Amino acid sequence: MTDSIQQADLQIKWQRIRQAMQQAHADGCLLTVDVNLYYVTGTIFSGYVYFPAEGEPHFFIKRPVGIEGERIHYIRKPEQMPEIFASAGLPMPRKLLLEGDELTYNEYIRLLGLFSPAETGNATSMLRALRAVKTPWEIDQIRQAARAHEATYRTIPECFRPGMTDLQLQYEIEKRMRENGSFGLFRAFGANMDIFMGSILAGDNAETPSAFDFALGGAGMHPSVPLGANGTLLKEGTAVMVDMAGNYTAYMTDMTRVYSVGKLSETAYKAHQTALTIQAEIMQAARPGVCCADVYAIAARIAAEENLSGYFMGTAQQAKFVGHGVGIQINELPVFTPRSKEVLEPGMVFALEPKFVIPGTGAVGIENTFLVTADGIEKITQFEEEIIALPG
Amino acid sequence: MTDSIQQADLQIKWQRIRQAMQQAHADGCLLTVDVNLYYVTGTIFSGYVYFPAEGEPHFFIKRPVGIEGERIHYIRKPEQMPEIFASAGLPMPRKLLLEGDELTYNEYIRLLGLFSPAETGNATSMLRALRAVKTPWEIDQIRQAARAHEATYRTIPECFRPGMTDLQLQYEIEKRMRENGSFGLFRAFGANMDIFMGSILAGDNAETPSAFDFALGGAGMHPSVPLGANGTLLKEGTAVMVDMAGNYTAYMTDMTRVYSVGKLSETAYKAHQTALTIQAEIMQAARPGVCCADVYAIAARIAAEENLSGYFMGTAQQAKFVGHGVGIQINELPVFTPRSKEVLEPGMVFALEPKFVIPGTGAVGIENTFLVTADGIEKITQFEEEIIALPG
Repeated sequence: MTDSIQQADLQIKWQRIRQAMQQAHADGCLLTVDVNLYYVTGTIFSGYVYFPAEGEPHFFIKRPVGIEGERIHYIRKPEQMPEIFASAGLPMPRKLLLEGDELTYNEYIRLLGLFSPAETGNATSMLRALRAVKTPWEIDQIRQAARAHEATYRTIPECFRPGMTDLQLQYEIEKRMRENGSFGLFRAFGANMDIFMGSILAGDNAETPSAFDFALGGAGMHPSVPLGANGTLLKEGTAVMVDMAGNYTAYMTDMTRVYSVGKLSETAYKAHQTALTIQAEIMQAARPGVCCADVYAIAARIAAEENLSGYFMGTAQQAKFVGHGVGIQINELPVFTPRSKEVLEPGMVFALEPKFVIPGTGAVGIENTFLVTADGIEKITQFEEEIIALPG
Repeated sequence: MTDSIQQADLQIKWQRIRQAMQQAHADGCLLTVDVNLYYVTGTIFSGYVYFPAEGEPHFFIKRPVGIEGERIHYIRKPEQMPEIFASAGLPMPRKLLLEGDELTYNEYIRLLGLFSPAETGNATSMLRALRAVKTPWEIDQIRQAARAHEATYRTIPECFRPGMTDLQLQYEIEKRMRENGSFGLFRAFGANMDIFMGSILAGDNAETPSAFDFALGGAGMHPSVPLGANGTLLKEGTAVMVDMAGNYTAYMTDMTRVYSVGKLSETAYKAHQTALTIQAEIMQAARPGVCCADVYAIAARIAAEENLSGYFMGTAQQAKFVGHGVGIQINELPVFTPRSKEVLEPGMVFALEPKFVIPGTGAVGIENTFLVTADGIEKITQFEEEIIALPG
């Protein structure tokens, strides 16, 4: 299915999964959710992968036809799996992990009934913890995504024409994203994450509180898609926050930049500099062993010192996080909240996004994607960080 | 939250939900999935709606801040609901319906634990059955979507330049979709439905079997997004099937047209005419009371009579359906398979998509969105149905 470099990468992942299962005293885990299948096979199919705690995985495929390889079993329905286990000499698991935060209730119950394990555990938690620490191949994919992401952002000034709306600007950017290789599809974990290719927030629309779990809101085009740009005119004095997806490989980057129409309010420039200060202090402090709650605390402290707490991550509704893991999905682990217990480890990749919403102006701040290295963090997304004036 | 016309529409839906619950001997249903919230409130929020079998719904809202109205309760977490039930005099349900095919296992278990009902039922099944029969307001939304969908398709010839690939053509069409008001976001029910704004299939890529539950496949841009256009050059003799989304209101239309680069094979033209014949015969036969399996049988019979069964709905992998309901999601009820037991009812809206994949040429056929009327079906999407030659 995949080339030899990626095959070697899969072996690393499979070994980590086996180790995690042994630590959880699990005998096997059954995966079927698209992002988990991609993670463990480098492809997406309709079916299941079963990992025993020791030995090689087995693949149970419904669609597409024509996949060849070892331990591949074509099935019409999951009820055929137990008899294939028996004929393949694969023991039925005593403790089975299933994707409890991703499978629907009825799918979970159906699979549970087929295996009737004595004990169950959560494959979603295990996979999300493993996926938080990227492999060298994954980090390379993220670096490639960053280069395309930056290339698209370089074209943003040419997308702008005076008198246009936030939506019109977004359509121009989307077109350039696609021409630069964006997959379009935007993958997120969990409900309450309805988004299309990213978000542009201009002017007071940045204050509109969101139904979703993203950092900021915006009214969106319609009550059925209540997020992001809403047709706001990009008039003089408007801050335009561009947070469009970095989905140029299967592993995303996340990057936000602020553009201005004419000159912004002084508070906006001050808040933007504060966001850059937050980023700089966190870049000094963050390294393996640092707790994600302490990273959040740095951001909140600096916002308070600058008397900007009321604008930090929103106004009427404020997001209580300042960063999040990124990878196959936009919201992977770790999460940087006031109470995060997660600790930074080498190989983690996360987006840090200190942002402020300034009434009458819009949203300012910064977002970059970082890699946790052996002794610090490395900024992967490289692009001008000051507020960029759009051509008059 | 909504205007008076839509308020009246919500009352129709609420009454249908109460009737369906009474028939199911259910005391209440709790909804939280975005599409169901939109269906019953005309908006999307993070939280829950509880419908008692008699009386008015209650709204439990986590985000966004600032929603006002009757029976609105702000909560931080679902565990607060039982005490609000008590203080509002709302009886705890003996039989509770939950969204068993949409909630994750862990969410479902969490909600179940809060209410501890003596009996449960599937709110997903109930809502999907209700949503299959559209209200007058919904039908009007679908008609509006069709007009924008047609307007985009009228621009397709101007999108084409000789020497371009299927992806390049798709990017041009996507831009025009957005400029015509497409929401971008493409909502589908269930897993195995990863798609971005629709699909374009050209040449032999139309034969590539899909992992997903869509009618046809295509390799896609990357193994992580294995559907649709894959960079195929649009050379002389290629059929280009355009099946891009009609998501211009919260209620989608579905429409496919075929474009040709130069002249196609005779088999392709013959198969296309056969698809039109299938559509015409089904338009004669379909009316309230007709079983969806019988609609599928008409299509399969005509394909066989024309010796085209081997190309019908794919080659190596053939989809076993010829149509599906459309609405807030692209794959609503009913479904037209060989074994569908569903029966057409006035107000149902469905896409009929007889398609053939011709090796060496690509996919041909037709797809339109239809409304079931009192005595037949009405074609909602109106656009040239012959194969349209792209400008040389």
